[in-house]
Amino acid sequence: MTRIVILGGGFAGLFAAKSLVKHLGKSAEIELISDQNFFVFQPLLPEVAAGSITAAHAISSLRGLLKHVKTRKARVHSIDFEAKTVTVFQGVQRRPTQVAFDQLVIALGQSTDLSRTPGLSDHALAMKTLADASRLRAHVIEKLEHADITQLPEVKQEALTFCVIGGGFSGVETVGEIKELVDRSLKYYPSIDPSEVRVILLEYADNILSELPPRLRQYAAQKLAARGIEVHTSTGVASATGTAIVTTNNDVIGTRTVIATIGNAPSGVVRGMNVRCERGKIVVDRSLAVAGVPDVWALGDCALVPLVEDASAPNEFAPPTAQFAVREARTVAENIRRKLSGQKPRLFSYKSKGAMASLGGKRGVAEVMGLTLTGFPAWLLWRGFYLSFLPGASAKLKVLLNWVLDGLMPRSIVQDVKPENSHTQIAHYRAGDRIFEAGNWADGFYTIISGRVEVRMKDSNTGELTTREIAAGGHFGERLILGESRRAGTVRALDATEVLVMDRQEFLRLASAFPAFQNYFQAYFKDTYGIDWTPAGQAQ
Amino acid sequence: MTRIVILGGGFAGLFAAKSLVKHLGKSAEIELISDQNFFVFQPLLPEVAAGSITAAHAISSLRGLLKHVKTRKARVHSIDFEAKTVTVFQGVQRRPTQVAFDQLVIALGQSTDLSRTPGLSDHALAMKTLADASRLRAHVIEKLEHADITQLPEVKQEALTFCVIGGGFSGVETVGEIKELVDRSLKYYPSIDPSEVRVILLEYADNILSELPPRLRQYAAQKLAARGIEVHTSTGVASATGTAIVTTNNDVIGTRTVIATIGNAPSGVVRGMNVRCERGKIVVDRSLAVAGVPDVWALGDCALVPLVEDASAPNEFAPPTAQFAVREARTVAENIRRKLSGQKPRLFSYKSKGAMASLGGKRGVAEVMGLTLTGFPAWLLWRGFYLSFLPGASAKLKVLLNWVLDGLMPRSIVQDVKPENSHTQIAHYRAGDRIFEAGNWADGFYTIISGRVEVRMKDSNTGELTTREIAAGGHFGERLILGESRRAGTVRALDATEVLVMDRQEFLRLASAFPAFQNYFQAYFKDTYGIDWTPAGQAQ
Repeated sequence: MTRIVILGGGFAGLFAAKSLVKHLGKSAEIELISDQNFFVFQPLLPEVAAGSITAAHAISSLRGLLKHVKTRKARVHSIDFEAKTVTVFQGVQRRPTQVAFDQLVIALGQSTDLSRTPGLSDHALAMKTLADASRLRAHVIEKLEHADITQLPEVKQEALTFCVIGGGFSGVETVGEIKELVDRSLKYYPSIDPSEVRVILLEYADNILSELPPRLRQYAAQKLAARGIEVHTSTGVASATGTAIVTTNNDVIGTRTVIATIGNAPSGVVRGMNVRCERGKIVVDRSLAVAGVPDVWALGDCALVPLVEDASAPNEFAPPTAQFAVREARTVAENIRRKLSGQKPRLFSYKSKGAMASLGGKRGVAEVMGLTLTGFPAWLLWRGFYLSFLPGASAKLKVLLNWVLDGLMPRSIVQDVKPENSHTQIAHYRAGDRIFEAGNWADGFYTIISGRVEVRMKDSNTGELTTREIAAGGHFGERLILGESRRAGTVRALDATEVLVMDRQEFLRLASAFPAFQNYFQAYFKDTYGIDWTPAGQAQ
Repeated sequence: MTRIVILGGGFAGLFAAKSLVKHLGKSAEIELISDQNFFVFQPLLPEVAAGSITAAHAISSLRGLLKHVKTRKARVHSIDFEAKTVTVFQGVQRRPTQVAFDQLVIALGQSTDLSRTPGLSDHALAMKTLADASRLRAHVIEKLEHADITQLPEVKQEALTFCVIGGGFSGVETVGEIKELVDRSLKYYPSIDPSEVRVILLEYADNILSELPPRLRQYAAQKLAARGIEVHTSTGVASATGTAIVTTNNDVIGTRTVIATIGNAPSGVVRGMNVRCERGKIVVDRSLAVAGVPDVWALGDCALVPLVEDASAPNEFAPPTAQFAVREARTVAENIRRKLSGQKPRLFSYKSKGAMASLGGKRGVAEVMGLTLTGFPAWLLWRGFYLSFLPGASAKLKVLLNWVLDGLMPRSIVQDVKPENSHTQIAHYRAGDRIFEAGNWADGFYTIISGRVEVRMKDSNTGELTTREIAAGGHFGERLILGESRRAGTVRALDATEVLVMDRQEFLRLASAFPAFQNYFQAYFKDTYGIDWTPAGQAQ
């Protein structure tokens, strides 16, 4: 029996699987490989981030949606086009497993690359996955909790400034929803005055929602402004730290929340493939077959799908939208059937039926079949369309219930996930930034990757003040090992500085288990502070 | 104005705050400090773990529940009883903040300590917090996903064996709910035969639910057995690894899911306090005042609350249940009012109204006011009682809707949180266990804390097999730094072995940023493999 393997469980992969079942029934063995066991309904992610939809309700189980398809939760590692196998890591992701195919459908989507802007990938929150949306919600609530109780005006202002980078659909919907979340939550935070909150949208181009006609763009910008959102066009982000961003106009905005909806890039697997790529996407012909590789197809955001012969201008290729992905999926499925029965393939062609954006606060903009709508009707159309588009009856019912409850009840501010989850992270500081202060909780161990810091210490007996400089390759905060729980000194960045921060628990675990670490620090404490330190367990 | 500070936002803290508002109105300033901004309804956690209730719906916002109370999301660090201040870390948890009090209520609950059983704290899942419950659900689904696709019978059997340790209310309800989750999910996993699933409850005492009358205990044990759950009494756990537990009867059970509901221990803050403790709890008198410290009260699971004068037998102290915590909260509030108005305190006394347990599968046991109920009526009573007890109208509505939907729709198998979240962890192996195999994905760097391993390598050119032993203090897997993505050798534990595993990303980050690490490995690669390695960035 023909084995068809689909890589990816987004719109493109899910609908390709569904169409293949329709075209081929049980005459083929169809397997879908995805690194998560659910389909995420991307258009609802901003609402998940804002809490109007519970995270678990914006997603559907792939196994539930795909009855006659074998579903494999695994991470794709590589493809051998000659041997016709895909290598995946499944389970605890250690043992490589080979999955054979006769026909392969690549629908791996895109990932995000923010590395071109210093500090952005380390300090910005993304809005691409379900986890991103949940984390963003938890992060925003964390900032409100902090702003409500802090005594420091600067910290309060940074905590109450929320910046979204990118004025496309995702950025506009995210900023609208975040504003609504904050507005509806403020009643629980008595020490925060609404005037202290800033919600900002930055777009590098000279207008937002460039896919829409000018009239709708203007309406959207006005509506966002009327709702109290600052929209800065012709403004990109030049660098980011944990407490500020610097714009391309050299403005400094103090903020502890930067949400990046920009920076699409090919996924790691696609980058590692030996196929022709252009503009970061896999080159396919108009039948969606991958150029130069027999029996392999690509579609969706990872593929460069031409809409006309000899396409070259950007608008001659399919845009990366769900609407196109679903139509491409049908073409791929039909062409696989045609190929298996020796027929000629059909060429993909499709014309967009329109575009819509929700602006939050029950307002939207829509252009459908040449008609334009704004305000509440557009927002209602947006919700109605996406509800009908949502695959799976139980998901539809749950999202509908979420919307009804959200209309009736106050927005929940429970912070049901932890905002952070990395134990070793890179942090950026601008010259002059305080990294930590004497008396602070000793939260981790710092290694300087680039830049320079100054450590200022006061001798607790004599009151004498000493300072020393530490440059790239040096480290500070290592006195954790000695049992320090509060910082003895104050550290400031002298230049723009990049550090690796290893959290307290990770560092202490490593220091207690790894002898090379212990030997190094034993010598270091002796040389630097004249302290004889004996690692626990070695003392005799 | 009198400042009353409450530490902890569980049943005891929440109800103390509510009662204080009732007793004192606006004549006192009441502040509650909790490290999460929500109240968790503990009795529903097993249902969250099983997915019949969405995590966000088993909790209520503390700010929403406590209208006239200042709420501070912060971690309590220490208490200065003399100066009458609490030191907390808030925000990014660095800067210490002093919170002053006139009256202090300690309701910090208990934490878990599994350290007495080798491997248990590193390999068991807990069931104490909301995050624990969410993680457990994700973990169970991960095991089903893996069992469905693995080719290895041993791995499949381990993945399909689920062990719950502890036959108290929490353990019994958890095992019942996990069984229901697995049973209802199996239809999505075509390669799993129901007979391959084992769900096991281990209890060290000679019966489960020892708080209930013998007839109900027997009913519960029979009902669990009838539902296909193996109940092993007089059986504890002696040690645990990532793939097995060894029982106190020396049986080895291959399993990748161990859920520990045992091991209550005082929280870190309580341990660090300078107050009298007995049985791991703060000693209070019958008015709930902390012995020897004026103006400080303690209640709930962190306090040893005597029910009679000169209490000494275990049953002469209040049990750690929500029922008692709520009654204690009322007494503390009343006694603070009495103290402020110069009256004598009231002594705490309360007699349990009964106990109930849900067994899953719509069955339960209950003893209420001397009456006993079993089966469906007991289960219905359980749900009705907890629904009425749940604080907050919107939480009630949400939980009710969850139950209705769960009754109508298939159980969702979406894995909406990641099962693991630590980047450096300790893992235990039994003698003979394979740690990894040649060809496996190189997932991290291993340091041996105790024990001994054997590394077996095959030269890819000559086919020659070499073996070497590595003992405590040694390490393996460091070839990640050289760009290795697959393991070159196979590693097995020779003795019972404990290792620190640092995940790939963390290790590579540290290796690239920390020169002492680089110097060590540069010398190590030269000495051990004769490889000249130059860290990136240092090459000139």
